[in-house]
Amino acid sequence: MNSALVITGFMGTGKTLVGRLVAQRLDRPFLDLDELVEEVSGRSIPTLFAEGEEEFRWWEQNVLGKLDLAQHIVLATGGGTLVGAWNQGRTTNTMTVVLDAPLDVVRARVVEGSGRPLAPNLDALYERRAAAYTRLPIHVQAANRTPEEVAEEIVALSRQWQPTSQPSGGGETLEVRAPGGANYSIHVQAGVAAGIGGFAGRYAPGGIALVTDSVVGPLWGETVRHDLLAARLRATLVEIPAGEAHKTLDTLSTIYDQLLDAGVDRGGAVVALGGGVVGDLAGFTAATWMRGVRSFIQVPTTVLSMVDASIGGKTGVDHPRGKNLIGAFRHPDLVLVDPVFLQTLPLRELRGGLAEVIKHGIIADPGLLDEVARLELEQEIAPTVWEPLLARALRVKAEIVERDPYEQGERAKLNLGHTFGHAYELLSGFALSHGEAVSVGMVTAARLSEVLGLAQEGLATCVEQTLSGVGLPIRWPAANAEAVWQTMQSDKKKGSQGLRFVLPRALGDVVVTASGEVDEATVRAVIEAQNRA
Amino acid sequence: MNSALVITGFMGTGKTLVGRLVAQRLDRPFLDLDELVEEVSGRSIPTLFAEGEEEFRWWEQNVLGKLDLAQHIVLATGGGTLVGAWNQGRTTNTMTVVLDAPLDVVRARVVEGSGRPLAPNLDALYERRAAAYTRLPIHVQAANRTPEEVAEEIVALSRQWQPTSQPSGGGETLEVRAPGGANYSIHVQAGVAAGIGGFAGRYAPGGIALVTDSVVGPLWGETVRHDLLAARLRATLVEIPAGEAHKTLDTLSTIYDQLLDAGVDRGGAVVALGGGVVGDLAGFTAATWMRGVRSFIQVPTTVLSMVDASIGGKTGVDHPRGKNLIGAFRHPDLVLVDPVFLQTLPLRELRGGLAEVIKHGIIADPGLLDEVARLELEQEIAPTVWEPLLARALRVKAEIVERDPYEQGERAKLNLGHTFGHAYELLSGFALSHGEAVSVGMVTAARLSEVLGLAQEGLATCVEQTLSGVGLPIRWPAANAEAVWQTMQSDKKKGSQGLRFVLPRALGDVVVTASGEVDEATVRAVIEAQNRA
Repeated sequence: MNSALVITGFMGTGKTLVGRLVAQRLDRPFLDLDELVEEVSGRSIPTLFAEGEEEFRWWEQNVLGKLDLAQHIVLATGGGTLVGAWNQGRTTNTMTVVLDAPLDVVRARVVEGSGRPLAPNLDALYERRAAAYTRLPIHVQAANRTPEEVAEEIVALSRQWQPTSQPSGGGETLEVRAPGGANYSIHVQAGVAAGIGGFAGRYAPGGIALVTDSVVGPLWGETVRHDLLAARLRATLVEIPAGEAHKTLDTLSTIYDQLLDAGVDRGGAVVALGGGVVGDLAGFTAATWMRGVRSFIQVPTTVLSMVDASIGGKTGVDHPRGKNLIGAFRHPDLVLVDPVFLQTLPLRELRGGLAEVIKHGIIADPGLLDEVARLELEQEIAPTVWEPLLARALRVKAEIVERDPYEQGERAKLNLGHTFGHAYELLSGFALSHGEAVSVGMVTAARLSEVLGLAQEGLATCVEQTLSGVGLPIRWPAANAEAVWQTMQSDKKKGSQGLRFVLPRALGDVVVTASGEVDEATVRAVIEAQNRA
Repeated sequence: MNSALVITGFMGTGKTLVGRLVAQRLDRPFLDLDELVEEVSGRSIPTLFAEGEEEFRWWEQNVLGKLDLAQHIVLATGGGTLVGAWNQGRTTNTMTVVLDAPLDVVRARVVEGSGRPLAPNLDALYERRAAAYTRLPIHVQAANRTPEEVAEEIVALSRQWQPTSQPSGGGETLEVRAPGGANYSIHVQAGVAAGIGGFAGRYAPGGIALVTDSVVGPLWGETVRHDLLAARLRATLVEIPAGEAHKTLDTLSTIYDQLLDAGVDRGGAVVALGGGVVGDLAGFTAATWMRGVRSFIQVPTTVLSMVDASIGGKTGVDHPRGKNLIGAFRHPDLVLVDPVFLQTLPLRELRGGLAEVIKHGIIADPGLLDEVARLELEQEIAPTVWEPLLARALRVKAEIVERDPYEQGERAKLNLGHTFGHAYELLSGFALSHGEAVSVGMVTAARLSEVLGLAQEGLATCVEQTLSGVGLPIRWPAANAEAVWQTMQSDKKKGSQGLRFVLPRALGDVVVTASGEVDEATVRAVIEAQNRA
């Protein structure tokens, strides 16, 4: 446990003055991080910023890293110090107070031309930092109060403060063989994304485009960007609108524009921070900007993208008349799977992602189903609890993709539940999420397998119990069997002869049927029976 | 020499009737190709078309191929029979007469609902076929004349007719190693493109998109499409506007739309028929449609694309603020270099392409310069004369690309003349063509090399003589040395330290200088001296 008391907050909230007052009252030494940075670097803050924000962040992280926070000190940081996850992690067991003030108060206190770096774009900066500060637990209002009043409240709070220590897991690393001998690593560990600067430095001597979307960006964008800056990497945040509707050539075009503005060249890297849509767009950007940039790093933030979309190399955009028609195979050079991101993921999306975890269990690893059953979704799940589960689910996909990198055979197994699922998703008008539709689709596949005599009776019930155990739907009563069949027919690629189904013969054992092997009447009867159940 | 007399022309021009009258007057047997196709296939023409135009073209080519044209017969063909190059080649030494009629006459004669296939889209079809017919030498006006009058003229012409036999070269084939062990062949031969159906069948079991532009399309688009159809391949012509200004994401998007309409899936092929812009766009389409189609076939139609752009795997589009910023490496699976296409290439473009041939000679094969010097550009050059020259120039590039497929080292040599050339091209407002600018740029490079003591005196003069010998410019008097230097500075990729130059030390021996090794004053003095010369 650390004994330091850290004061942070937006510029103009009086961090230094309040910090001095708190130190006096607690009779502790006071330290100002900006002053320490100037002393150690031998340069002023404006000079460091003039060399690039990454220069300043690097010194800041180094100085913070060398401070002994077990000492009884009071430390006032800069406004951006605790935005990055690495620095946040450094102060996890330290009492950290955020001084809050509304934007208009901040604006009034930050005089134009005061020499403060970052004063332009104040509104945008305020918004992003406010988002990052929400992840720090203790906030004290600094507006319309004297510094003495603020200091008093902090002193009072310090008398009750208790650290909340989190278990730190060891994590797991998977090595995946990509075609052409270019292997890559998947690191699965709580907090691993905080170290992205250390990883990315090896992969991207040029500039870095950190691609994220309008949902994940405000939550985690600045955090990850600061971790890159602190490793002296030139990182630019590229935020696209969230949602599959924006997985288009038009969005891609705006990403290219921002890469050009940011000076990201072929020696640079593209980092995808988000779910499947961000990964697909960022990956296609990595594959095509200047005929391919040096590195593509996946930092998935959803269960679905962690266990599925972030590996396998499929990238691309949708065509108005069909999903994923435009794209390229680009395997990542590094994947950082950090369950810390799941803390901000809505429960429904967690569940949808678990549908894919369960799918991987049914395909090749039945033990995974027991692990899923043990999750207590109603409570917050510690990141370290996710680690082994995610790693195990990833291993199933990684092994199949290694054997079939360009989707020419075995990889079809990964479509378990998806042939039916896509039809359910579409026919529901997307009222069913992708994961929910796949959940219902896996049940249909299991039932069909039983009816065809491929699986023993009881398999479908087992699949249903696993899915409903985590709150996923196992039927969609509105389904019209004829419409489902029609949709699947038009869904399949032109040129193929008939529908093929991925069917479980037992847990951990699936087969792909030959084209047209299963007739319409049987399939429709199975769908009808499932909906009546 | 063949003795048959072949009558072709647009539908409604009276081919069959005129053919019968000619046969009577010459006392020869009359044959109608459509009737023969119905007889041999056992199906009616409308039935064959209902199965797809490729079904009909296949039978038509087969029946034509089996006819003995040495016989004294009169043969009336279908309107599309002699559009394909293979069929045209079959009748090269045969007296072939095209019956001409203006579009309004044709439209009046083609009654709606007459059961004639292809009647819809009559205007577009007329335009394309008219372009293909221009390559057949004998035309007879059929409008506003009786069939008897038309027949009389043909009989009169037949009494004077002499075949013009063309020498047939053996051609050359180069095998090129691409990364990942996927080798490909470059066939350099007059007439080789006529056999594209035979080649493409092996490469594209799915549909084929034949991408061309608004200049090459009207000249050769239908010809190549018919050659594909005659091999029973589903081929769709995709025509884009000509010119670098259209090498954009927007044009790419229209190509994707047409691929979707045509049902070209990942088992299909993209064929590029045109110059460098078409090759770049078509190649990027091949790389990204459904994450990469099975085959990409280059059929270059300019000297420049034959010896340079069609190999090396660079594909992509321009960004509004920079050329080739978006793209992918996609090596072709087959390249058909057919000098027959050069018959329709404007002289200025021929010369521009020769600048790149000369460049390859200076880089690695001085003997190539003698071959270029022997060309008689003022006269029409027989396709077979081009064969060894193109093959030799190709070999230089193929060998460099094999050693450096992703442009990480030696491939920079291929930029000889281009660092200066790009600046000249830009500063001239594109009044200098790419080839002309490169020509002037190679002279600058040779002069700079002499000044730096890298080359012996006389090299620049030798380079100048070779270039001016084929009518290429060796100086651009309007050049402002300071502006050229500035343009080169901003042209280079961000992040590099200083300009690098590709300089000839002798014919067949070039070096790449280190970044910033050559100072501004020296370069400017060389440019000024060249312009004063």
